[in-house]
Amino acid sequence: MKNTSSIQTQFGAHLKKLRLQSGLSQEAFADKCGLDRTYVSGIERGVRNPTLEVISILAAGLGIDISQLFEFN
Amino acid sequence: MKNTSSIQTQFGAHLKKLRLQSGLSQEAFADKCGLDRTYVSGIERGVRNPTLEVISILAAGLGIDISQLFEFN
Repeated sequence: MKNTSSIQTQFGAHLKKLRLQSGLSQEAFADKCGLDRTYVSGIERGVRNPTLEVISILAAGLGIDISQLFEFN
Repeated sequence: MKNTSSIQTQFGAHLKKLRLQSGLSQEAFADKCGLDRTYVSGIERGVRNPTLEVISILAAGLGIDISQLFEFN
C-alpha cells in the first residue's frame, strides 16, 4: 500500500468522503444502514474495525459496490 | 448486488480463486499472512466474517489492492 496510515483510518476517511458526497448526514446514513450513529462515527474516525458484513451494509447504504469503498490506495 | 448469495460466500469464493491464480496452497498463503490455515479455510468457505484488518492482510498476502478482492459484483 502506498499510504502508511492504518487501514481503519484510510477506510474511515474514505467512507466519510463518500457519505458527504452523497449528501447524507451521519445520522441519516446510519439509519439507512440500520446501524447506530455512534458506530458509524467510530468507523469514520478509524477507531472501529468493521466486519465484511458491515462493510457490505455500508456500501449498500451508499448505493455503491464494495470495491469503490476501497478505491483510496 | 447482482448476486444474491451472501457476501461471505462471494468473498470467500473470490479469495480462493485469486489464491489459486497466485499458485499458493492454502497453507502457504496462511503462513504468508500470519493467519491460521483453518481460519483462511473458513473465510474461503464463507463461514467466517473477517474484519477490515484481516481483509487488508489477505490483500497484502496476495500482493493486490483490497478493491481487487471485491471485484466480483
